Amino acid sequence: MRTKADIQKQIIQAVDEVKKTNPMAGSITNSVTINFVANAQLAVGGSAAMVYLPDEGEFLAKAGGATYINVGTLTPIYGQTLPLTAKTLYENGKPWVLDPVAVGIGSLRTELLRQFKAYKPSVIRGNASEIIALAGLWGLDGGTKASNVRGVDSTDSVIAAKNAAVALARWTGGAVAVSGKTDLITDGFAVVFSHGGSHFMEKITGAGCSLGGVVGVYAAVTSPFIAAVTGTAVYNLAGKRAESKTDGPAGFQLEFLNELYKATAADIAGNPFDVEEV
Amino acid sequence: MRTKADIQKQIIQAVDEVKKTNPMAGSITNSVTINFVANAQLAVGGSAAMVYLPDEGEFLAKAGGATYINVGTLTPIYGQTLPLTAKTLYENGKPWVLDPVAVGIGSLRTELLRQFKAYKPSVIRGNASEIIALAGLWGLDGGTKASNVRGVDSTDSVIAAKNAAVALARWTGGAVAVSGKTDLITDGFAVVFSHGGSHFMEKITGAGCSLGGVVGVYAAVTSPFIAAVTGTAVYNLAGKRAESKTDGPAGFQLEFLNELYKATAADIAGNPFDVEEV
Amino acid sequence: MRTKADIQKQIIQAVDEVKKTNPMAGSITNSVTINFVANAQLAVGGSAAMVYLPDEGEFLAKAGGATYINVGTLTPIYGQTLPLTAKTLYENGKPWVLDPVAVGIGSLRTELLRQFKAYKPSVIRGNASEIIALAGLWGLDGGTKASNVRGVDSTDSVIAAKNAAVALARWTGGAVAVSGKTDLITDGFAVVFSHGGSHFMEKITGAGCSLGGVVGVYAAVTSPFIAAVTGTAVYNLAGKRAESKTDGPAGFQLEFLNELYKATAADIAGNPFDVEEV
Repeated sequence: MRTKADIQKQIIQAVDEVKKTNPMAGSITNSVTINFVANAQLAVGGSAAMVYLPDEGEFLAKAGGATYINVGTLTPIYGQTLPLTAKTLYENGKPWVLDPVAVGIGSLRTELLRQFKAYKPSVIRGNASEIIALAGLWGLDGGTKASNVRGVDSTDSVIAAKNAAVALARWTGGAVAVSGKTDLITDGFAVVFSHGGSHFMEKITGAGCSLGGVVGVYAAVTSPFIAAVTGTAVYNLAGKRAESKTDGPAGFQLEFLNELYKATAADIAGNPFDVEEV
Repeated sequence: MRTKADIQKQIIQAVDEVKKTNPMAGSITNSVTINFVANAQLAVGGSAAMVYLPDEGEFLAKAGGATYINVGTLTPIYGQTLPLTAKTLYENGKPWVLDPVAVGIGSLRTELLRQFKAYKPSVIRGNASEIIALAGLWGLDGGTKASNVRGVDSTDSVIAAKNAAVALARWTGGAVAVSGKTDLITDGFAVVFSHGGSHFMEKITGAGCSLGGVVGVYAAVTSPFIAAVTGTAVYNLAGKRAESKTDGPAGFQLEFLNELYKATAADIAGNPFDVEEV
Repeated sequence: MRTKADIQKQIIQAVDEVKKTNPMAGSITNSVTINFVANAQLAVGGSAAMVYLPDEGEFLAKAGGATYINVGTLTPIYGQTLPLTAKTLYENGKPWVLDPVAVGIGSLRTELLRQFKAYKPSVIRGNASEIIALAGLWGLDGGTKASNVRGVDSTDSVIAAKNAAVALARWTGGAVAVSGKTDLITDGFAVVFSHGGSHFMEKITGAGCSLGGVVGVYAAVTSPFIAAVTGTAVYNLAGKRAESKTDGPAGFQLEFLNELYKATAADIAGNPFDVEEV
């Protein structure tokens, strides 16, 4: 069984390794929050690169330490780029993070997310409704056929997505992170509940997307599970600290990025969390 | 005749309703200011979702309380997505806001804006040159054949666009908002002049686009005219407040978003405006 | 030979002219930093407009005082838009700035950058690895066949790119700006080393891209060489000033844009630089 102390030790190693080696995590992500994703990746010590074309996705998949794929604002070329990139990642044993934004909307989005089942994303990060809907799309336990996704918002609670998250993680052999008031991270066996964050996170666009990108940075240097736990921890820590320094969402976003940058390995490992087995 | 007191009462209702119900206003908008649009929509209490693909535009048109369409940075897929989305909005009686950015540039832009005449956008928001040029494109009074649009900037004054705005509003049966030093909003019969704002609004990109998105949020809960008046009022209020707190454009943008978030219904209704009949 | 005093006098003229005439510099640029590019252009006194479609690129090429082309996040339509736009710029004798982001990645990127050799960009701005790789791609002195570009980061030093920069500038008859700790700008005969900036510039995305856009604004009113020197100087000045006002990257970006806005012509001309002949 994983103890809190074990997990904290691995968080510290991951954070230090990123700050030391500046790993590149390429992204194919949506245009709404693409700048926030890149700046968050830089703030924690990683390097960012974004592309759209098939052969460039393939290049990044091979060149990067990990890759972040977010299906938020699909364009036609994604129909070629995403399967090729995901396949390349899978076949080269490279870690990748999937953000199944708004799963259930549109035919291309549905078809792409269906294909990703075979390419086993190392980390899946989403809100509760997205995690439940993805499990449903993949025919796994805890999923539902009908999506409760409303645009990009969740209408389900994190705990309601626990079974789906566990099933997804067992299928991929990686980890799943469910974002909400208390965040849930699982590798299919251990479940971490990570505390902190801020009510302002729902008042800025891209908190979830940029977390996905940051988890990608950590996934370049550690296991999917520790990457997801570490990314979530630094988000909860920075969110809590930032909230105390501002009274509006734009001020919060600025302070949040600054706190991502300032957070030390010990700070991040010390952010409150609980762990249980399933 | 609409009195100021009537309008103020409806502004208060609209602002409170948005804060209470968190309505989703989807957008198909340009990549330059897409993040600002989303964050402004969240700041006033709405929910945002952005897409590019035809069936996803159709989905958002049906699922959202209102939709914002901005033709700023067209890509080829817009040629399919925008007509389908606008048609869906029109046929389903859903409110939508059109931002005819840079009307007069390019063949696809011209063709799309021409088609929108039949789908009667509930609110048209633009600068004076855009409003005059759109009226010209649609063959309405107050328009001119030759566009004075210079890229995304206006070279005409708001008052010069009054006849065009009235003609457009009478055609659509909705409202038109002309942004400038003093903003003009009309439903074709009443004309509101809204005061406030800041010289910094021309020193940041997206003040107009994000206002369009915010008007979309209000249009989900009130009439096009009140939505346009309310959005303009909160922009003028937040702009004036933000200017007093900073001495540079980036500081202004941060404070502006914070003030959008903090503005109460009474604050917004109390922002100075005049009303006249035409 | 160009003296420092001559250069400073021309910097002052360029800065004043931009503040007075608000020249438009259109862009075809990447989606990651497109907002930052526009806001930086506005902050120094220019006007921004971004497009993706072929006939709109052609329009901007003719209508703008100068144009900025950045190949950061290519989509399929760029394959038509960029050659047409570059050709239009060249044939109309209009200044344009090329940012050869991540040269060496992908087939379309390589093909487009190869074609640009004939259209002689007035200013080429990149990091050391990009400048060396572009010279290699164009078969010029100082270039290497194999790219050392790692995603969007440089792995070479500015001074290592001096020969490539000189060769590129002699080919185009314009100027080349190499960004790094100390920045190098050359017209193929004089070399300016510009000092200042901040370590935070590598912790935010888009410092280089937005510099390219700002150089485009200055290129609308002065020579390519002075435009590149002026843009680099205001970046180094604003970077240094901003760093002293913040302790995190997001705070830095805000202060940086504010300082771009506040910098006077005399401030910019007074930013430290050295000049030598080659």
